[in-house]
Amino acid sequence: MTVLPDAPVRLRYEVELSYQVHTSGADFIFNVQAARTPRQQVLWESLTTSQYVPLQEYWDPQSSGRFLRLRAHAGELVLRYAGLVDLHHHRQNPSEVREIGISDLPGPVLPFLYPSRYCESDKLNGFAMQQFGALPQGHARVQAICDWVQRNVRFESGSSSGTTGACDTLAQGRGVCRDCAHLMIALCRAVNIPARFTTGLDYGADPGLGPPDFHAYVEAYLGGRWYLFDPSGTAIPMGFVRLTSGRDAADSAYASIFGDVTPFARALSIRAEAGPDGVLRLPCRTADALSTADV
Amino acid sequence: MTVLPDAPVRLRYEVELSYQVHTSGADFIFNVQAARTPRQQVLWESLTTSQYVPLQEYWDPQSSGRFLRLRAHAGELVLRYAGLVDLHHHRQNPSEVREIGISDLPGPVLPFLYPSRYCESDKLNGFAMQQFGALPQGHARVQAICDWVQRNVRFESGSSSGTTGACDTLAQGRGVCRDCAHLMIALCRAVNIPARFTTGLDYGADPGLGPPDFHAYVEAYLGGRWYLFDPSGTAIPMGFVRLTSGRDAADSAYASIFGDVTPFARALSIRAEAGPDGVLRLPCRTADALSTADV
Amino acid sequence: MTVLPDAPVRLRYEVELSYQVHTSGADFIFNVQAARTPRQQVLWESLTTSQYVPLQEYWDPQSSGRFLRLRAHAGELVLRYAGLVDLHHHRQNPSEVREIGISDLPGPVLPFLYPSRYCESDKLNGFAMQQFGALPQGHARVQAICDWVQRNVRFESGSSSGTTGACDTLAQGRGVCRDCAHLMIALCRAVNIPARFTTGLDYGADPGLGPPDFHAYVEAYLGGRWYLFDPSGTAIPMGFVRLTSGRDAADSAYASIFGDVTPFARALSIRAEAGPDGVLRLPCRTADALSTADV
Amino acid sequence: MTVLPDAPVRLRYEVELSYQVHTSGADFIFNVQAARTPRQQVLWESLTTSQYVPLQEYWDPQSSGRFLRLRAHAGELVLRYAGLVDLHHHRQNPSEVREIGISDLPGPVLPFLYPSRYCESDKLNGFAMQQFGALPQGHARVQAICDWVQRNVRFESGSSSGTTGACDTLAQGRGVCRDCAHLMIALCRAVNIPARFTTGLDYGADPGLGPPDFHAYVEAYLGGRWYLFDPSGTAIPMGFVRLTSGRDAADSAYASIFGDVTPFARALSIRAEAGPDGVLRLPCRTADALSTADV
Repeated sequence: MTVLPDAPVRLRYEVELSYQVHTSGADFIFNVQAARTPRQQVLWESLTTSQYVPLQEYWDPQSSGRFLRLRAHAGELVLRYAGLVDLHHHRQNPSEVREIGISDLPGPVLPFLYPSRYCESDKLNGFAMQQFGALPQGHARVQAICDWVQRNVRFESGSSSGTTGACDTLAQGRGVCRDCAHLMIALCRAVNIPARFTTGLDYGADPGLGPPDFHAYVEAYLGGRWYLFDPSGTAIPMGFVRLTSGRDAADSAYASIFGDVTPFARALSIRAEAGPDGVLRLPCRTADALSTADV
Repeated sequence: MTVLPDAPVRLRYEVELSYQVHTSGADFIFNVQAARTPRQQVLWESLTTSQYVPLQEYWDPQSSGRFLRLRAHAGELVLRYAGLVDLHHHRQNPSEVREIGISDLPGPVLPFLYPSRYCESDKLNGFAMQQFGALPQGHARVQAICDWVQRNVRFESGSSSGTTGACDTLAQGRGVCRDCAHLMIALCRAVNIPARFTTGLDYGADPGLGPPDFHAYVEAYLGGRWYLFDPSGTAIPMGFVRLTSGRDAADSAYASIFGDVTPFARALSIRAEAGPDGVLRLPCRTADALSTADV
Repeated sequence: MTVLPDAPVRLRYEVELSYQVHTSGADFIFNVQAARTPRQQVLWESLTTSQYVPLQEYWDPQSSGRFLRLRAHAGELVLRYAGLVDLHHHRQNPSEVREIGISDLPGPVLPFLYPSRYCESDKLNGFAMQQFGALPQGHARVQAICDWVQRNVRFESGSSSGTTGACDTLAQGRGVCRDCAHLMIALCRAVNIPARFTTGLDYGADPGLGPPDFHAYVEAYLGGRWYLFDPSGTAIPMGFVRLTSGRDAADSAYASIFGDVTPFARALSIRAEAGPDGVLRLPCRTADALSTADV
Repeated sequence: MTVLPDAPVRLRYEVELSYQVHTSGADFIFNVQAARTPRQQVLWESLTTSQYVPLQEYWDPQSSGRFLRLRAHAGELVLRYAGLVDLHHHRQNPSEVREIGISDLPGPVLPFLYPSRYCESDKLNGFAMQQFGALPQGHARVQAICDWVQRNVRFESGSSSGTTGACDTLAQGRGVCRDCAHLMIALCRAVNIPARFTTGLDYGADPGLGPPDFHAYVEAYLGGRWYLFDPSGTAIPMGFVRLTSGRDAADSAYASIFGDVTPFARALSIRAEAGPDGVLRLPCRTADALSTADV
């Protein structure tokens, strides 16, 4: 099977989130919908909630993130979301992908040079410069950072918490995908490479790591685009459906909950389907540099 | 002297920053220009640099911040910026200023609920709820947080560094204006009140604290506007000229420098002038809730 | 029932710890035996292990802690320890218990003035001085610190981890007995009062908080003795059987394990018995200052 | 010149510390006197203070540290201390120096396996195991940790503060001798090698790094002794005169001051002299494993 230049990877996914709301008036902000971008076309989607409450949607221009807000009654709340997307990857030979000097970065990219809650690049500056400062610039340097994180952070479910940041992960040497992403981002920013935190579904993850789940990975700004990296090494980047991107997990939680609520189930699935031309293109590992975001 | 309802406070300011650039090609991102908003009208401004290099400006829609970039040659670099602004304050009786529920917040305000690099509200949640969770909601609760920070953080020049965050400041009980602002913001977000970090000049600061300088203060989103608070208690909010606002100091440094550079002088001045009607309105302390930003 | 001046409180306790050892050669260091001091007389004790391996015991002169070491085979390891102690409390009117100046402290007490792993008094200096620096010195000041911690740290099982320190607990406002003890100790040292971390069993704890367990509490050096404080407020100090004391939990873990081991059960019990005179003296809450350690 | 097997290295040193005491009653605890051990014989010493106040000395059995306490009057306080020591080094081929299993460690060594204030080995466990866990055990592994720290932490005066710990130093990649020592100690403990923080004078340091000063280095417990390591790589271990050793800098500050005091000068000197046999043996770098402490 050959992957055709302009033929998209088509993916279908489903997400179901269930909560027990103990007191009426609990606020939810969800961040679970696929971003709509030229390279990620949402062909169909459906979102339903088990409670009839008003839904508000806010689309953040900076992240393409789609914030969905609702105020729930007491009782069970189930959110079901499903969709079908076509991914048109930009592919490039990594050796042709350069770093961009500070003075040539587009304005909206600048915030991704600065430290953020879980990516304390200001604290990691010395470490990062010593490890990666002298490497030749370009995609290969970012890949070296990605590989370093993959080698030095052992994937271990439950080994971190919601307040774990990049410095903690460097010290502990273990974490989940979110932690690997935070550490890689902090190291990139510390050597002046813009990097952001992107969320999706873990297409291609080893079932031994648990049932399908949300995934966190990294985009670095190189050669005028945001290129994909998976520092946890657990999934297949060509199969990533972008939900949102931001500075770090503080911007990108799939659900922020304000109120007395117990989450009790999360079920996700994702699979490839035949594209418009009837050809099934399965996401696969590749040595190409991949991007699904021009801005 | 009476402050007239629709008569602005007019302020003139000058900023001069000097650097020694050791190697050509150092990149600077400055954040020193007055924001242009309906309530802060820039009547005149002038910006010059001692080196003839291209200047790029990027205006961040989210923060109204104006990022100015340049790439400097080796040698001295001096940036001189001066301006004249009219401030049209929104004033309100604090007892009429309510908190806004999560579900009623405008979309662009949501990011200011989340933790950021120097405002680790996720770590401070328990402390904040115990201290301030039970207070009656509204402007008075935010003022109580502001007063608590002012009482519990001693202003001490040089007592913190560029990596000091809100949790450090809580523990150390000392800091500068930036640290007071970070702690107040983190405590607000921890009780679900959106808050942001705003920079300006320290109008009205006691000369005993040093020469005039950049200032950092807080805006909290209440009653549909961003209201001003000065948790360091060192300056007069009615005289604040907004430069930029952001999540925290990571977004809002007055200068981010990439290269081998030694800063060697900083001189600022600010003073009130007679307004269009010939009346001099001096900024003064007031019990009113003040705002200069509708969004 | 009256508590007689020289009549001891007599307590009987049992501890059972079970482990699955996956690879032979795992090293254990236990810290579970009752300290032997003039005011805590061990009348009887028994310690058995389910594996026949050599037991080494080391008695640390500084802490009175009894370190028990063994190297286990693969398979199940169960340690059973039981004992009977008489506690002869020193009781004093709190208003008569003074703080001791630095220059009058005994040499072995000095290390308990300094910061330790989980009691970062050096970071909390500013906060502690502002909250407690101006209070009248003496037992009442230490009690005020204890009460502050009890009011401001909510007891919540599972809310902290093995790497949680006093600064984390201050920020989070929740924790378990170990965290309350660490924060109280750090605040005491920050105002120059020697304080140490002491472990025992949680006599008198509310069964609603879970089955009987190990307990961590605080001793502060005042008036020439180490006085007992229970900043978690969950148990009854008069019923505390001292296991060991140290700088903090790093010195005092009930079990340090080196190897591939899964702990799988922990069962403790403690109850009062009639003393040598046939009288049952139940530990009870008291306003007296209590001490069971002269050094 | 040959170093004779049983001939000592003889060193003479002088220390002068000056303070301005603003309020009478300031307490000082000094830790500046050479330890007296079989391998470090103090032949002569002199200690004088400019104020006639009672001196108290406490000798800590665990660290051999000599705590000197005094309570100063307002005014100037100068402490002058000088001495002459003979060092009888134990030297060994590093390849013969083994690690000791947990179960064979002497009791007093156990505390040096545990985390301490500035050596957060509990947080660094994962990182250390990944970097050094698979190396062959023995002196060479500890040397590898020492070399790693030397390569990855740039020596930079003023780059850290009194609250900087090993995790901070790992992240920042810069520090002073104290920081290098803390990081090396934390990494050793994280792979179950006992390590302690030892202070001395920086014999042999490059004058380019500043005037002679106190020095901090590391001792690791191997083959039944404490062996010397200098992770900052700035001085010559054979010339180290031991002042004290402890868990970390919290135990070993050369001066702990309680009161309103400004330090204003510190002058140190150290030089080799001819030994009892009239031969001058200059400390030099050597590939041998060196120890000056049997316990």
